[in-house]
Amino acid sequence: MNKTSTETRFVVVEREFPFPPEKIWRALTQPHLIEEWLMKNDFKPVVGHSFNLRGDWGGVLDCEVLVVEPTKTLSYTWNFRHEDAAYNLTSVVTFTLTPTRTGTHLRMQQAGFRPDQKQAYGGARAGWQQFFAKLEEVLTRTD
Amino acid sequence: MNKTSTETRFVVVEREFPFPPEKIWRALTQPHLIEEWLMKNDFKPVVGHSFNLRGDWGGVLDCEVLVVEPTKTLSYTWNFRHEDAAYNLTSVVTFTLTPTRTGTHLRMQQAGFRPDQKQAYGGARAGWQQFFAKLEEVLTRTD
Repeated sequence: MNKTSTETRFVVVEREFPFPPEKIWRALTQPHLIEEWLMKNDFKPVVGHSFNLRGDWGGVLDCEVLVVEPTKTLSYTWNFRHEDAAYNLTSVVTFTLTPTRTGTHLRMQQAGFRPDQKQAYGGARAGWQQFFAKLEEVLTRTD
Repeated sequence: MNKTSTETRFVVVEREFPFPPEKIWRALTQPHLIEEWLMKNDFKPVVGHSFNLRGDWGGVLDCEVLVVEPTKTLSYTWNFRHEDAAYNLTSVVTFTLTPTRTGTHLRMQQAGFRPDQKQAYGGARAGWQQFFAKLEEVLTRTD
């Protein structure tokens, strides 16, 4: 029973884009592009770099870069501190890029939702769908 | 000089909608409608009620209802706690509805941004433009 209480859930969103991995990678790692589809940020593709993602309504996420394998894997923590345990989130976002015959398969996994964080989990599922839709717009628009 | 450091700034967004105040009021006070243009929430139009606004990415705002004058004025705190002072926001959102010949003039004021909170202030200006655009969609779509 203790085991169950410590299991966490994750959100996965996958999509294939008709662009090479290099182009997707730029959108995932250049701050001005990240801002267009995700949030304002002071990201740097450097392991150990601490940064924030900032929502327009005053909210902010605390993040740290964990893995940087150019054009292949990008991973960072995605933490939100709140005194209410239901909202206090410690999670890890991992992007995996795989070249396909016609473009790139992008997989995003956000891991670390506790069973009692149903709202945060549901929100992340909806949120990443929106983020991916905006990412597609950015990719289509930029050279 | 001390006076300057305690002055705060506010964001104002105003728009006229071709709908009566009662309809705007519903969109501002019914949780399922608030969710459509602002954020998920457990709002109640009751002075003293504490509620949260929850972003899809796991973030959350702490709020408390301050003023409820049906079809006229709604005000609540809009607070975000963070250990970094640049992000720690204590603000008050006030909606004022004024009937016009052809509809309703809606004014939103968010007050409480300190001078060192340039990012939060700029974010709120952009954010409220987006929220109002979504509010307009919701109003146009619903009966």
